[in-house]
Amino acid sequence: MTTDFDAYLSSQRDKHLNELQEFLRFPSISTLSEHASDVLQCAEHLATLARQVGFEHIQLLQTPKHPVLYADWLHAEGKPTVLVYGHYDVQPVDPLRLWETPPFEPTIRDGKIYARGSSDDKGQVFMHLKSFEALLQTTGTLPVNVKLCIEGEEEIGSPHLPAVLEQHKDLFAADVLVISDTTILGPNRPSVCYGLRGLAALQVDVYGAKGDLHSGLYGGAIQNPLHAMVELLASLHDDNGVVQVNGFYDNVQEISAQEREAFAKLAPDDSALAQSLGVTELFGETGYTTLEREWVRPTLELNGVYGGFQGEGTKTVIPSSAHAKITCRLVPNQDPADIQQKIKKHLQEFAPPGVRVEVTLHDKGNPYVTPFDHPVIQLAATAYEQAYGVSAAFTRMGGSIPIVEAFANVLHLPAVLMGFGLDTENFHAPNEHFSLDNFDKGLRTLCYYWLGLDEAFHSQQA
Amino acid sequence: MTTDFDAYLSSQRDKHLNELQEFLRFPSISTLSEHASDVLQCAEHLATLARQVGFEHIQLLQTPKHPVLYADWLHAEGKPTVLVYGHYDVQPVDPLRLWETPPFEPTIRDGKIYARGSSDDKGQVFMHLKSFEALLQTTGTLPVNVKLCIEGEEEIGSPHLPAVLEQHKDLFAADVLVISDTTILGPNRPSVCYGLRGLAALQVDVYGAKGDLHSGLYGGAIQNPLHAMVELLASLHDDNGVVQVNGFYDNVQEISAQEREAFAKLAPDDSALAQSLGVTELFGETGYTTLEREWVRPTLELNGVYGGFQGEGTKTVIPSSAHAKITCRLVPNQDPADIQQKIKKHLQEFAPPGVRVEVTLHDKGNPYVTPFDHPVIQLAATAYEQAYGVSAAFTRMGGSIPIVEAFANVLHLPAVLMGFGLDTENFHAPNEHFSLDNFDKGLRTLCYYWLGLDEAFHSQQA
Repeated sequence: MTTDFDAYLSSQRDKHLNELQEFLRFPSISTLSEHASDVLQCAEHLATLARQVGFEHIQLLQTPKHPVLYADWLHAEGKPTVLVYGHYDVQPVDPLRLWETPPFEPTIRDGKIYARGSSDDKGQVFMHLKSFEALLQTTGTLPVNVKLCIEGEEEIGSPHLPAVLEQHKDLFAADVLVISDTTILGPNRPSVCYGLRGLAALQVDVYGAKGDLHSGLYGGAIQNPLHAMVELLASLHDDNGVVQVNGFYDNVQEISAQEREAFAKLAPDDSALAQSLGVTELFGETGYTTLEREWVRPTLELNGVYGGFQGEGTKTVIPSSAHAKITCRLVPNQDPADIQQKIKKHLQEFAPPGVRVEVTLHDKGNPYVTPFDHPVIQLAATAYEQAYGVSAAFTRMGGSIPIVEAFANVLHLPAVLMGFGLDTENFHAPNEHFSLDNFDKGLRTLCYYWLGLDEAFHSQQA
Repeated sequence: MTTDFDAYLSSQRDKHLNELQEFLRFPSISTLSEHASDVLQCAEHLATLARQVGFEHIQLLQTPKHPVLYADWLHAEGKPTVLVYGHYDVQPVDPLRLWETPPFEPTIRDGKIYARGSSDDKGQVFMHLKSFEALLQTTGTLPVNVKLCIEGEEEIGSPHLPAVLEQHKDLFAADVLVISDTTILGPNRPSVCYGLRGLAALQVDVYGAKGDLHSGLYGGAIQNPLHAMVELLASLHDDNGVVQVNGFYDNVQEISAQEREAFAKLAPDDSALAQSLGVTELFGETGYTTLEREWVRPTLELNGVYGGFQGEGTKTVIPSSAHAKITCRLVPNQDPADIQQKIKKHLQEFAPPGVRVEVTLHDKGNPYVTPFDHPVIQLAATAYEQAYGVSAAFTRMGGSIPIVEAFANVLHLPAVLMGFGLDTENFHAPNEHFSLDNFDKGLRTLCYYWLGLDEAFHSQQA
């Protein structure tokens, strides 16, 4: 089936890729305060892009940190309203030396576009805009009403979006939430995601002497904060990767036999996966398959550990402090605040003698699951199949989009997670990239989805 | 007793302090390759200082890294020859933000001179030069022949000095080696050090996936190198601070009852020491006092641990690698190379699954002990008493001067460790400083020592 939007997207491809590169050039790293003005400029650029497509009532809703872009097109009288969520902020880029081309100088090679944010999530936000442009340019209208909610704080746990949604409930009111910030199973293996893991983040700071000390003079006399820290951190898991924090697994919804069977069909080849990642073997909580560990089991991960000398050569020092950054991936029905408290308690109880342990609670986000037989979910599978020519799978995802739960709580919307990324695309790592094949097919998937949505809602009501 | 050198030193004090500050301004950090030219400039400045005192045959003996300064004054016919060893290189200065005044802008306040190297060891090297200047200027001659051997690689384990000594055996031939790179027990508590701990350094690198990974997508699926590292490092000690590396204590010479008794008399007040260091309590290997743990027991210390995200906020990453820097302090009769191999074996045997562990061997130095009843040692106590007005103690030291063993092996010299530092002077840490009281009294101690040395040697032969 060829349609007007298909021909339009083909004719505009070069122009669209140029525009995408322009969008990717903004170093909109939300966690680093020195990039605050870059984040703002990126938001303003996004507003311009939305205006050019034909969106109206464009606003940058202010927060204490980075603004949320709102825009709408509300001329499809009697049709459902779609709320599109995405984020224009990106992860930090260190270690910079590992990037083959600079993270904010987008480069196309081998059918991929390389840049920080290309896959997570600017590339996918851009596709939404262009899918609406394609329909507007070829039909003069849209088959649904559309509202955009594109935030700049997703990579820091969306601290202010819940308040923004609460404050602007009516503005954001809609019938369905569509998010493209997830991956599909692989090249030409589309999948609709119906569940996400939640997040709970903490920082641990271990303090010893009031200053760094000479390891010759004081070595043996006092507790070395690095020794205390590795002992403390090692106590968080057993040798089999099982989290040892008391009560950590208490509220975990065990996987159903049905899900286990469905996942088994999608199971990756463990040795091929290990090889592709460059590890000698996969590893994780005993008693669960790799996919189960990634999708339905909670984790407690160290994301950073640091203290003392890191330079060239040797420095015979006992540092005065040591630090670690921790994030957990949570599953229904774990409560992020409860998990943070349990970990804090563990870290304080297991603190070795001679040091002071401080625990700071950071971001948190709830896990989220939606029934996969909901019509707006089923339509997603149909749209993927129309664009990709193969049937789509239903999956869950190991990552977190904390805001999904906030949308559910505040706006009471069914959420559809239609992603176009690949899990080999290095988001959060050097050399992030995005497949142009998924860029092309994804644009068409979105167009099919918008065109089918009114009917899907009628089928639900019937 | 007032002597000519005493009056001379008093009259020249301001000039000497200005000259010392000039010497301390060179950022001669031997471990950082970007400071190589600073190290060389510092060596050249030291040569100028020696020439001004009256030294001759001044040479910078080249090594693959930083040069060794040789100089002599050999006009005391029939008298013993002293070889003075010291070092003009210094430790790195990070974390820079903790310095109250910049490390290479020497500042005098509260009777102390603050600068990197003020105590370890440029200040003490400078005192040697000025002690000879005082005797030459007031008597026209020196009571002993003198050779200087001042190196630029002590802080990186003196990798090239043994070869330099071997190559220039005749040049460095002497009757006694005098080193001022140690501490005294406290303000106005002089002490002669008769033993030093050795050193064995290693680096551990733990490698996981070939790149950083998103902790949502892969969390739970693979071994996190940070988890593997903290588990591995935690296995190096038990909860009581006892090293768990197989065979680590095998060759350790146990402390004698006599030594234990002598040390007990010098024992610090543990709670006062803890308070002065800012720790809640002291901590270390069970069964030994604080002084014993510092002087006669070996240690295995983590000096740096790092991997993953260290910035502001949160980054949900599984890093591709994790790293640790380790140094051991060794005692007779541990062999540094043997200890390095034992630790390497432990790290490889205890490597958790799913990661690759690489161990790199770095610096090493032998422990050293000399009989405290040797006349050149006894003379040191006498000289201290003459300058300080109180009797001196005999101690051992927790730090390492690897080169002491090399001098013993190559030149077969008795070594005298006459230090003037205080263990509160923050060497290897921010705000390193040196007491001007010890500067003044130390200069006089050295003059008394040179004046008594010929007679001490005769008493030995008698």
